[in-house]
Amino acid sequence: MPSSLKDVAARAGVSVKTVSNVVNGYPFISVATRGRVEAAISELNYRPNASARRLRTGRSGLIALSVPEIDAPYFAELASHIVDAAEQRGWTVLIDKTGGERSHEQLAVAGIRSDLIDGAIASPLSITTADITAIKDTHPLVLLGEKLMRCGVDHVAVDSVAAACEVTEHLIESGGTRVAAIGMRAEDDAESTSALRVQGFRKAMTAAGRPVHEHLIATVHGYYRPDGYAAMRRLLALPDPPDAVVCFNDLLALGAIRAIHDARLRVPADVAVTGFDDIEEARFSTPRLTTIAPDKGALAEAAVDLLARQITGLPPETKPQEVLIPYRLVVRQSTLPGADTA
Amino acid sequence: MPSSLKDVAARAGVSVKTVSNVVNGYPFISVATRGRVEAAISELNYRPNASARRLRTGRSGLIALSVPEIDAPYFAELASHIVDAAEQRGWTVLIDKTGGERSHEQLAVAGIRSDLIDGAIASPLSITTADITAIKDTHPLVLLGEKLMRCGVDHVAVDSVAAACEVTEHLIESGGTRVAAIGMRAEDDAESTSALRVQGFRKAMTAAGRPVHEHLIATVHGYYRPDGYAAMRRLLALPDPPDAVVCFNDLLALGAIRAIHDARLRVPADVAVTGFDDIEEARFSTPRLTTIAPDKGALAEAAVDLLARQITGLPPETKPQEVLIPYRLVVRQSTLPGADTA
Repeated sequence: MPSSLKDVAARAGVSVKTVSNVVNGYPFISVATRGRVEAAISELNYRPNASARRLRTGRSGLIALSVPEIDAPYFAELASHIVDAAEQRGWTVLIDKTGGERSHEQLAVAGIRSDLIDGAIASPLSITTADITAIKDTHPLVLLGEKLMRCGVDHVAVDSVAAACEVTEHLIESGGTRVAAIGMRAEDDAESTSALRVQGFRKAMTAAGRPVHEHLIATVHGYYRPDGYAAMRRLLALPDPPDAVVCFNDLLALGAIRAIHDARLRVPADVAVTGFDDIEEARFSTPRLTTIAPDKGALAEAAVDLLARQITGLPPETKPQEVLIPYRLVVRQSTLPGADTA
Repeated sequence: MPSSLKDVAARAGVSVKTVSNVVNGYPFISVATRGRVEAAISELNYRPNASARRLRTGRSGLIALSVPEIDAPYFAELASHIVDAAEQRGWTVLIDKTGGERSHEQLAVAGIRSDLIDGAIASPLSITTADITAIKDTHPLVLLGEKLMRCGVDHVAVDSVAAACEVTEHLIESGGTRVAAIGMRAEDDAESTSALRVQGFRKAMTAAGRPVHEHLIATVHGYYRPDGYAAMRRLLALPDPPDAVVCFNDLLALGAIRAIHDARLRVPADVAVTGFDDIEEARFSTPRLTTIAPDKGALAEAAVDLLARQITGLPPETKPQEVLIPYRLVVRQSTLPGADTA
C-alpha cells in the first residue's frame, strides 16, 4: 500500500501540516526539519500526488526555462542561478533547449505542456512580436534579453548598447587604433542582441572621432569558441589587421585569443581582446579576459520574482515590467598588461 | 473555445493522425510536415492535453535528468547530448540540479514527481547502495558514472581506473619525474569517481616503479577552476614541487594551469598538466589541454536507449545492463610542446 502523508509525519516525528509544507516547497522550514521529513519520505518511498496537489492549489510547482543552448556557459550559469532562485519558492525548473529555432521558441512561449507547468521564462532568439502578441496574457511568461522589448510582456535584460559602447571606449582609451568587432550575425534583425551591440560599438567609435571600417565588423554563424577563432583568423589575414577586438560574448573572445596565439602574436601587446558575460572561464584563462559582467544573480531573481507575481495573480491594472539589470566592465589582462586581479 | 486536434489538422492541411504523431513526438515525420503542424499549433494556440495523453498512453513524454551541477561544462555538455538523444524519441527532458546532496539525490532516484515523469537518468555523488535498493524496480531509472555499479540498476559509465592509469602513464613517459594528482575528496568513499581515479594513478606509478608520495595527492572541496587553482598553489609551495600533474577533471586542470602561470612558470616546460572530460574549453585554452575524452554522444545514446527499454516494458528475465563507454587520451600542448592539433 502506498505511504501517506500521515505515515511520513509519524516517521519524521512532525505534524502532517509540516510534511505538507515540505512537499509543497514552502520556505521557512528549518534545514533539520526538512532533512528529517525528506529522509522519512525516502525511507517510506512516499510519492506526493502532484495531480491532487494541482487540484488543490491549481499549481504544479513546475516552471519551464527555455534557452537556446545549455552547453553555452552563459546560459548554464544563468540556468543555475534561476534554479536556485526558483528553489527558494519550492519550484522545480524544467529546462528546455530551443536551439534558437523559431518553431521551438513559439512552442516555448506558448507554454510547452502548459497543462503541466505554472509558467515559463524564455530567452528567445528568433521569434517575432507577432508570435508574442498571439499568446500574450494566456499564461505566466517572462522574457530574458532585449529581443522583443516593449511587446507587453514582463522582461529582464541588460542594456547592450550602453555596455558595448563602454567596452569599446575602454579599448580606444587603452590605445586601440584599429578596433574590430566580432559577433554580428547576418540573419539577425535590428532588435537582436548582436545588432544592439554593433550599435553600441558604432556609437563609441563615432563619439571618439574614429572611422568605422565595415570590413572590421566580422560576422559569425554561432556564439561558440570555434566561431570566434574563425572570425579572428579572417581579421588577422587582412592587409590592415586590428589591434583591438570587441567580442560579443566571452566564448567568441576566448576563441579569438586562441587564434591570436596560434598566429604567434600576443594579447594584449599585439591585439587587445574583450568579451561579454563574465563566465567563470574569463577569470582563469591565459590571459584573463576583460569583459562586461552582468549581475546574473540579480537577473535570475528578477525573472523569478516577475513570474511569481504573475502566477499568484496580478491586479488587472498592473503593467508589464521591463527590468534593466546592472552590469560592470571588469578590466583584466587581455586589455591591461599586468592586471592580475579578478 | 480551445482548439482541437481537428482544427490543427485543417489549418496545416494534414490528417488528424499526423498532428497526433507530431504532438506525441513520433520520429519519421518530415521536417516540412512537422514545421507546418507546429506553425498551425502555434497559430491556433492549441494545447495538447497531457493528462488525456497520459491516460491514453500511460506516459507523459517527460523524463528527468538529475546532475550535481548544470554550470559545470561536463554536465552541461552531457545534458545537451541527452536532450538531443531524448528529442529523437519525442521526449522532453526535465533537468534537475541536485547539488550532489544525498537527500536531493534520494528524491531524484525515487522519481521526483514520478506521477509526472516516465523515468529518470541520474548522476549520483552521495547516495548509497541501500538508497537504490529501496527504490529499485519501482520505476524506470538509469544511473550515470561508476558510483553504485553492481547495485542492480542499468548503468552507463567510463572506466575511471583504466583512464587515470593511461593518462598517468602518459605523463611518466613524457618525462614527469615527480607526478602529482589533484582531485581527491576527503568525504568520498572507495567507490566514488575520485577514489577510482586515485586508484588508477597509483596503479600506473607502481607499474612504472615510481614511489607514490602521499603529499603529492592534493585534495579538493569541489571540482571547479578555483579548487584546482588552490590545490596547485599548495603543491607549488612544497619544498619538492611536482613537474607533472594529473587532474581529475578539466576545470581543475585549467585552474591549475592558471596557478602555474601566476607563479611565472611554464606549461608544460616546468609543469605538465592533464585533465579529464574533454570539454570544449580544453581545445581552446592556452596551452591546449591534454585530457581523457569520453565519448559523450555514445554515453547519452546508451543512457536514453536503456531508459527507453525500461519505459516500453522489459521481459521479466532481463538483467540490468552495465555499459562501459569508450574514451581516448587526447594529447595536446599541456604535455607535448608544439602539439597543435585537437
